[in-house]
Amino acid sequence: MNPLPNDAWFTEVFDSHASAFSLKVSEKLLDVQSPYQHLEVYATETYGNLMVLDGCVMLTDRDNFLYHEMIAHPALFTHQDPKRVVIIGGGDCGTLKEVLRHPGVEHVTQIDIDEEVTKAAERFFPSLVESNDDPRAELLFADGVKWVDDAPGESIDVLIIDSTDPVGPAEGLFKTDFLKRCHRILKNGGVMVQQSESPLYHSGSIIRELRHDMREAGFNSVATLPFPQPVYPSGWWSVTLAGKETDVNHFREDAAADHDMPLQYYTRDAHRGALVLPPFMRNALA
Amino acid sequence: MNPLPNDAWFTEVFDSHASAFSLKVSEKLLDVQSPYQHLEVYATETYGNLMVLDGCVMLTDRDNFLYHEMIAHPALFTHQDPKRVVIIGGGDCGTLKEVLRHPGVEHVTQIDIDEEVTKAAERFFPSLVESNDDPRAELLFADGVKWVDDAPGESIDVLIIDSTDPVGPAEGLFKTDFLKRCHRILKNGGVMVQQSESPLYHSGSIIRELRHDMREAGFNSVATLPFPQPVYPSGWWSVTLAGKETDVNHFREDAAADHDMPLQYYTRDAHRGALVLPPFMRNALA
Repeated sequence: MNPLPNDAWFTEVFDSHASAFSLKVSEKLLDVQSPYQHLEVYATETYGNLMVLDGCVMLTDRDNFLYHEMIAHPALFTHQDPKRVVIIGGGDCGTLKEVLRHPGVEHVTQIDIDEEVTKAAERFFPSLVESNDDPRAELLFADGVKWVDDAPGESIDVLIIDSTDPVGPAEGLFKTDFLKRCHRILKNGGVMVQQSESPLYHSGSIIRELRHDMREAGFNSVATLPFPQPVYPSGWWSVTLAGKETDVNHFREDAAADHDMPLQYYTRDAHRGALVLPPFMRNALA
Repeated sequence: MNPLPNDAWFTEVFDSHASAFSLKVSEKLLDVQSPYQHLEVYATETYGNLMVLDGCVMLTDRDNFLYHEMIAHPALFTHQDPKRVVIIGGGDCGTLKEVLRHPGVEHVTQIDIDEEVTKAAERFFPSLVESNDDPRAELLFADGVKWVDDAPGESIDVLIIDSTDPVGPAEGLFKTDFLKRCHRILKNGGVMVQQSESPLYHSGSIIRELRHDMREAGFNSVATLPFPQPVYPSGWWSVTLAGKETDVNHFREDAAADHDMPLQYYTRDAHRGALVLPPFMRNALA
């Protein structure tokens, strides 16, 4: 692709909250219309490479560690002994890399509907795919909802929904019916985690509804963990955990404090702190 | 002032990090060139009113609670018994309001160089000035650096530097020499706190230098606390505390958990969590 003019910016407008975030870009590296979505990759001036899906920022080199660590490690340190992990979405493979850092994990299946995302990660985000050759990793390109339907009951320890926003290809991943299907394939003691949008923008809407729907689907505990994420709307994001016959408000604190993973954001204390919601969120979720 | 066209946006560009944040605005409510800075107030579509100084977002109705709670309460719950508090800057009076929530505080002096900021807060941010008539509050419009020089030694319990960025009128507030003068007027056991920019953008520069300069100025302990702040660069901000013969890595946890202040973000657990820095920050600060 061609270099862009010196003053070129990529801007994502969040219509529903009348705000926008921009990064200065020096080059467009990829522009692909897959069967599912419009995929772009840019070189930015200060955030490394940037991946965009249907006009929404997915990740940058500079700050994706926040999201990927927070969607993976709280769930894995909450489960008592995670061996079989499934990732729905996550085609950039950054979540897969974090999951594979856990030595007790025996098998991880990643099911993303769009192979173009993984191809783009392989070309432009090499650090995210560096664990793809791990013999424990299985990469499938298929419909995650159908995969869940076809999976045997009570066969999974941790289920990670690493999806785009609840519009477009990921819309079906935010429905009660899907959550019930997820509940079915988790073993007792299993943990599900889903990215759940902005604490500032969505506490009274998407997050509250997701927590309600998780309980409706049979999960007996839920916990929403906020964390900073500069390139996402409002710069503040969240994941929501749900437990099947387990309390996701507690985790293996000793293991979370004593490991040799080279993490940049997640700590036992960050996990503890994230479990106690700010009063404005508690009120909005009530 | 006149209504703006339907597609009008206020945008702050952060040149040094080649990123930008925008809010859709419906009306410009104020445009004043004071002797010190260019002050604008806009009505936004979803963030309430917005105050801008020299082109930089200062605050909005919607999310200022994050910054104001985090610059006030960690410092006040760290000091063992704060009675005399001084705020340098803070002309919007939001920090003053948070400080006055503490019943043990006997006197708060706020010294902002620019009275136009307070006048704008009175007109367009009434919730921020609602404690200005508290008999414990003293509002001065003067040079904060000079005020500190003229203050008696060891006369203050908590000193809050609630300034703009370290360029323009606030530049002098980020120098070692000023920190030494602050150290002089604090009693033993005193706590100073300063807004210290973005964990993502400034850990290896402004934050590291400020912590170094605080130690050089005679403070025996420092602690940087990150927190979300959607309208500031990167959506993630920090305050840095410094103690004079006291350890700012500990605070009055029981008091922070048991009070009747109607806070929206600050909790004992948020304070605890913020005291443990993410590994990437620890590395950048080392």
